[in-house]
Amino acid sequence: MLALLSAVALLGVHAASSAAQNNAGAKTLAERLGYTRDAKLIIVHADDVGVTHSVNAATVTALGTGLVNSASIMVPCPWFPEIADYAKAHQDADFGLHLTLTAERVYYRWGPAAPRDKVPSLVDENGYFWHDWNPGTHIDPKDVEVELRAQIDRALAMGVRPTHLDSHQYRLIMTNKELFAVFVKLAHEYRLPFFVTRDWFAQYPYLEPSLGPSDIVIDHTVTIEPSLPAEKWADFYTTALRNLQPGVTEFVIHVAYDNDEMKAATRERATWGAAWRQRDFDYFTGQEFRAVLEQQRIKLVTWRQIGELQQHQP
Amino acid sequence: MLALLSAVALLGVHAASSAAQNNAGAKTLAERLGYTRDAKLIIVHADDVGVTHSVNAATVTALGTGLVNSASIMVPCPWFPEIADYAKAHQDADFGLHLTLTAERVYYRWGPAAPRDKVPSLVDENGYFWHDWNPGTHIDPKDVEVELRAQIDRALAMGVRPTHLDSHQYRLIMTNKELFAVFVKLAHEYRLPFFVTRDWFAQYPYLEPSLGPSDIVIDHTVTIEPSLPAEKWADFYTTALRNLQPGVTEFVIHVAYDNDEMKAATRERATWGAAWRQRDFDYFTGQEFRAVLEQQRIKLVTWRQIGELQQHQP
Repeated sequence: MLALLSAVALLGVHAASSAAQNNAGAKTLAERLGYTRDAKLIIVHADDVGVTHSVNAATVTALGTGLVNSASIMVPCPWFPEIADYAKAHQDADFGLHLTLTAERVYYRWGPAAPRDKVPSLVDENGYFWHDWNPGTHIDPKDVEVELRAQIDRALAMGVRPTHLDSHQYRLIMTNKELFAVFVKLAHEYRLPFFVTRDWFAQYPYLEPSLGPSDIVIDHTVTIEPSLPAEKWADFYTTALRNLQPGVTEFVIHVAYDNDEMKAATRERATWGAAWRQRDFDYFTGQEFRAVLEQQRIKLVTWRQIGELQQHQP
Repeated sequence: MLALLSAVALLGVHAASSAAQNNAGAKTLAERLGYTRDAKLIIVHADDVGVTHSVNAATVTALGTGLVNSASIMVPCPWFPEIADYAKAHQDADFGLHLTLTAERVYYRWGPAAPRDKVPSLVDENGYFWHDWNPGTHIDPKDVEVELRAQIDRALAMGVRPTHLDSHQYRLIMTNKELFAVFVKLAHEYRLPFFVTRDWFAQYPYLEPSLGPSDIVIDHTVTIEPSLPAEKWADFYTTALRNLQPGVTEFVIHVAYDNDEMKAATRERATWGAAWRQRDFDYFTGQEFRAVLEQQRIKLVTWRQIGELQQHQP
């Protein structure tokens, strides 16, 4: 009986997996977006919008250059109302929701969008999201569903029309199959594309079989090594752009201004800190990035374009 | 029967009132603090600590000068953990809790410390505290009690040892007798002095009869007219100090730095805004204030000293 169940499970995996591959085999994502199979396409995606005013201000400026062309918003954070107001007034901007289940800073914190006692496994003894999860932290997928629904509903109620969903700190991707299933379920229910890339399939084998046949998978992702020395910043990105594979690659970046607020909010560690984020801002709004894009004939695509493919699918 | 009830109620009022007056008649607050009856004593009290990093940083600097000598903390606000950490490391600092029931800004907001569904009358449709209360906002005193208890308990759990309680935007003082009763009840329960001044008794006749016989009443309070022109700032405070009455006066001030974060958090109106709060910081940490204190022989007292009187009372 166990052997039979395993065989059925395996069969299920193969069926889903081959459906996805057939789909991809027929037409690549680049082709579906109207480009040739060897086109190099990127989404330059700023994470963590809403977390501080510094991040909001830097993101709005970066989007204004056209070089950063997509971003995602943390609904439970204190500065969400500011960016919701901006998103409502700029319905053409490519804003997704950066679904959030942690409050990873020390001196500046936030809690769930859902009533705290409805999501007990997500909060610490003071009512904030956990600072971090360790193997002993039992996260209840039912709580995750309640919380993510509260975040999406608050965003909709406050005038945000998200183009996609993604996951803060990849918690919904890299924790376990159950949390990923909640992510996929809500994305389907709200009819939104969500960020998952083929690059993660080998390390997280539950991802691919959890996808539906019409879910879109991003080909690749690039994000900077958190501990890279400051002087290697531009080199890292420029090299990544020069070595870009054909297909769609999401650059996951984090922009902010290195000012008092951001310094204080992130002062316990340098990674993803104020100066760290200022470097991302400087590179992706600067001349070197613009020149490499041109030289390598790299085109920018948005989550809105990807979402439109999904909606037009039979 | 109604007449009888009224007579009893009146009797109750007179009893409490004359108890308070007898107390005051015996020894003034100044005398109980060890000064003469004609001494001019002030508490220079910075409100709203925890609301932003800018307010926290300016408050810590202002307390460091010794010219601002007391402050109170908003527990539900995002930067509470930063000031809780500071308070825990500086147990001698005179920090009270600035009990908070509103989120009065537009682009930067917070919600209750209690689970949201336990305090339904306090929150708007997006889960934040109401931006403002109007005559149609029904605030349930039971919700207020649940929320204030959650704020005090979170502060204690995170290492703050408050010296006093006061009320953000005076909501617990100036709304109605029921909310004031919750304030007094919790102050008694947690054995903390709370900010109420004789200056308010005429306008809010429920205040005085709601007090217990050992509650301490501050003689006077001074706070700046919100719409005063910037160039009149120093004149207003210096004149108030020159005309100071004998007894204990609390100067209710609001310090912050006029920086990007504070500008953004308060940009919808100038009153209590970033530049407005910078002016309070500049005056109360500056030479003119120091000189007037000396010239007028005004002494500074803290809430800690006032709380000690209460604890030593039989």
